[in-house]
Amino acid sequence: MRTLSFYQELIEKKIREILFRKEPADLYDPVRYMLALGGKRIRPALVLMSCELFDGDYEDAVSAALGIEVFHNFTLLHDDIMDKAPLRRSKPTVHTKWSNDVAILSGDAMFVKSCQLMMQVNKQAVASVMEHFLESALLVCEGQQLDMTYQSASNVSIAQYLEMIELKTAALLACALKTGALIANTSAQNCELIYEFGRNLGIAFQLHDDILDVYGDEEKFGKLSGGDIIANKKTFLLLKTFELSSKEQQLELNHWMSATEFDGNEKVAAVKSIFHSLGVKERAEEEMENFYKKALKALEEIKADGQKKNELYRFAEELMLRTY
Amino acid sequence: MRTLSFYQELIEKKIREILFRKEPADLYDPVRYMLALGGKRIRPALVLMSCELFDGDYEDAVSAALGIEVFHNFTLLHDDIMDKAPLRRSKPTVHTKWSNDVAILSGDAMFVKSCQLMMQVNKQAVASVMEHFLESALLVCEGQQLDMTYQSASNVSIAQYLEMIELKTAALLACALKTGALIANTSAQNCELIYEFGRNLGIAFQLHDDILDVYGDEEKFGKLSGGDIIANKKTFLLLKTFELSSKEQQLELNHWMSATEFDGNEKVAAVKSIFHSLGVKERAEEEMENFYKKALKALEEIKADGQKKNELYRFAEELMLRTY
Repeated sequence: MRTLSFYQELIEKKIREILFRKEPADLYDPVRYMLALGGKRIRPALVLMSCELFDGDYEDAVSAALGIEVFHNFTLLHDDIMDKAPLRRSKPTVHTKWSNDVAILSGDAMFVKSCQLMMQVNKQAVASVMEHFLESALLVCEGQQLDMTYQSASNVSIAQYLEMIELKTAALLACALKTGALIANTSAQNCELIYEFGRNLGIAFQLHDDILDVYGDEEKFGKLSGGDIIANKKTFLLLKTFELSSKEQQLELNHWMSATEFDGNEKVAAVKSIFHSLGVKERAEEEMENFYKKALKALEEIKADGQKKNELYRFAEELMLRTY
Repeated sequence: MRTLSFYQELIEKKIREILFRKEPADLYDPVRYMLALGGKRIRPALVLMSCELFDGDYEDAVSAALGIEVFHNFTLLHDDIMDKAPLRRSKPTVHTKWSNDVAILSGDAMFVKSCQLMMQVNKQAVASVMEHFLESALLVCEGQQLDMTYQSASNVSIAQYLEMIELKTAALLACALKTGALIANTSAQNCELIYEFGRNLGIAFQLHDDILDVYGDEEKFGKLSGGDIIANKKTFLLLKTFELSSKEQQLELNHWMSATEFDGNEKVAAVKSIFHSLGVKERAEEEMENFYKKALKALEEIKADGQKKNELYRFAEELMLRTY
């Protein structure tokens, strides 16, 4: 089995070869723009790795891998509209560069294309792959809706937050891995286990993101840390803080969260100091470790060649060790 | 074969039985709301009629019929955002009742659901049905994009307009008919002919809509006629007027089209008077008749039971005779 980076590079090349019609340019130019913005191509690489893990030929999984990456980019495109995000990977978002209307419609076209790519899977696997893909797509929509609902809700529990990131982030990672397994036509048990690996790893991955946003190496992270704090984003850290804080600390938190004019650094420092006094970073790391361990346990139980499994162990480790 | 109204009622019943999860309510309530708004259910009824025409069992086509209706409603939901439409079937549109963000995401979920319904088609037909459906979905996106582009373009030819309505309106009607044919597993030639029937009928249908908007029976139409004129909508009538009008008439047209404050009735009367002097209504009717005849010719060539074909002749006639 090849390394993650081999598959990532392959996807990067193949994604530029997906055929879209030229016209109407306002529909397809944004699609090409979005797909050319780059990204780590982790999900499609996982489709290929999982297929190989279960002794499939990764070439049989390339179209599904591309389908999942196009789908992922479609969700980013629509999410960017909802989040009113001006930039993605340091470039203007589609709705900023074109318009909201164009972004809605180009997103829709990307979703169609992702289904077309999924349908190119071989006959034996296409029905199960497609059904699993569509069910996962619904979960991702549900996760995005919960994320929006929770941003304006006053009470969000840790359990609700974990469910939300499971749907919004982990479901597609898990779907990518299971898709490769379905194409390789492995046992139902292996399919279930690789899904569990992805689901738990995905949740750990998002918790890691929450931590990195506050404590990540600013230089490597490429942006000022504390963005989530400034935006009052209800991450694991903030929700845990609500849970553990004293009345006094809650007053201070509310002060910062309702302030409309403030010095960003000051707000970040103040909130981080509350985080520190309650040890929420450690709590988040503990939670992350729990999910990470569950992921590794699922991987361990998978019946497949040990050397091939090692590539996935390595991948999981890298994901958890990244400091940016 | 049953009549159109039998199939319409069947669909109306079945559409209320589609299962959606309850939560998140902000994702699925708008979907249920949109599907309960009603409509003539013509597209899904056509799937069933076409399936029966080619000696299939209409029950085998119900899930695909529902899939096409859910897809159609998804496009209406997203179009309403882009058109900033406050009302649909006299009720608040989803983006008005909830928000743009909710409307985007609920639309996405509807699209997923439509694919899931299409995937329930029997094994023998599912691949061809799904591929045709996805290709048609792309055409509909392209048509909507052209519609938006043309609304702000200064020069739009009649040929461009016809291409746009073919994609935006006719493609899905034609797809509905071909889907029924594919499920019935009829000959490739019949599939092609029923598609042509739907494509030409769909274009005639849209031209009829353009005419009705200006000349329709206001009472039966349920709204003031001339809405397209007031909104400067580039319909066949207006584009033909641009083509045929004198310099003087063009000045008058431009005056009305650039006016920001005006009496609606006055504008409609003035523009209608230019239409009248150039005979554009008759030109539009002629064009509509041409497409209608092409549709009938395709239907004639179809190899199927004559009595069954009669139901589709009757349907086409009713579509063209409606005065609202």
